[in-house]
Amino acid sequence: MARELHLVPARRGRAVSLAEGQAIQIINTHGQQVVDTWCFNAADMTEFMSMAHLHATLESIFPAEGDALVTNHRRPILTLERDTSPGRHDTVIAACDRHRYALLGCDNDHDNCTDNLASALAEVGLEAPVCPSPLNLWMNIPIGPDGGVIWGAPLCKPGDYVTLRAAMDCVVVLSACPQDMIPINGAACTPTEVHYSLLG
Amino acid sequence: MARELHLVPARRGRAVSLAEGQAIQIINTHGQQVVDTWCFNAADMTEFMSMAHLHATLESIFPAEGDALVTNHRRPILTLERDTSPGRHDTVIAACDRHRYALLGCDNDHDNCTDNLASALAEVGLEAPVCPSPLNLWMNIPIGPDGGVIWGAPLCKPGDYVTLRAAMDCVVVLSACPQDMIPINGAACTPTEVHYSLLG
Repeated sequence: MARELHLVPARRGRAVSLAEGQAIQIINTHGQQVVDTWCFNAADMTEFMSMAHLHATLESIFPAEGDALVTNHRRPILTLERDTSPGRHDTVIAACDRHRYALLGCDNDHDNCTDNLASALAEVGLEAPVCPSPLNLWMNIPIGPDGGVIWGAPLCKPGDYVTLRAAMDCVVVLSACPQDMIPINGAACTPTEVHYSLLG
Repeated sequence: MARELHLVPARRGRAVSLAEGQAIQIINTHGQQVVDTWCFNAADMTEFMSMAHLHATLESIFPAEGDALVTNHRRPILTLERDTSPGRHDTVIAACDRHRYALLGCDNDHDNCTDNLASALAEVGLEAPVCPSPLNLWMNIPIGPDGGVIWGAPLCKPGDYVTLRAAMDCVVVLSACPQDMIPINGAACTPTEVHYSLLG
């Protein structure tokens, strides 16, 4: 039986509960879409996947296949089990928010990953104490030798996927990043949908 | 009149209120001490200096003299007005915590910057919603070309100081990092006191 594919619409977020041992496959359907990804302990929303703690544990800013992704309590919450893309995922840049788009010159409300996190959690009756800094899947941010942040386009191709396996009961939130004012979602500046499926 | 010097004892934290326009001079008294530094909007503890947001604003992981340090609402909260040290301050590593020391093999409770933040705020009747990832003054963490995190010793000398000027009414918290299990506070692995003074 084919595995069921679920949609994350362009510019939107979705929350997905995983039991310990279950996995989520996140698919870059059209190949150039950044997916801001958070993960919370299902039993305690104040424990969440934390990039700043991950940097110390991994001794790297780039997680790779096989790496445990840790929480702010330094416990594994997800494992990056499989990655068919070139493996460049950002861990140093905050989720976009209404303030970011205002500073870029957007006069109107702009969809953003920070609000997507809150909305996606609200849909399942949850609330986060803050918007943690996300794992930005496929966001290509090399750091120069002088510490400079370089805004690259994703290196992946359509259909590339990442599999994250839950190390505890948890809630994963995905946001198909609505950034269309800088080419972080590819040169076309056109945010797209992505898909995910659940693995046993 | 000599400016009054205030002590942050070795392994301890202190909270300091600043009015907009006031500045704090943080002095690396003995030259090898990392100082984890947070800053909260005095009117709203859910708005705080955020390294992940700073990376996007600065387009760098290393703030330098003249840079505005921004909050999770992307507003300047402090300006890095003066830095007499070589200017290497970390922005990617989480504050140490009891979990970090347990993983390093410490059997007993170990002083740590995360608890120091909570204690220092409690002394002035405040509480943070989470422990934000701090500006780690003088913590020397170069990032290698492959994204590797390198644990260096501080590059500064005794008496080097950093001046931070408040862009809004705020509460700065300093923690003289108690890390003595890896040489992040210098090769001697001996945390020391630091000092600060307030400027008009």
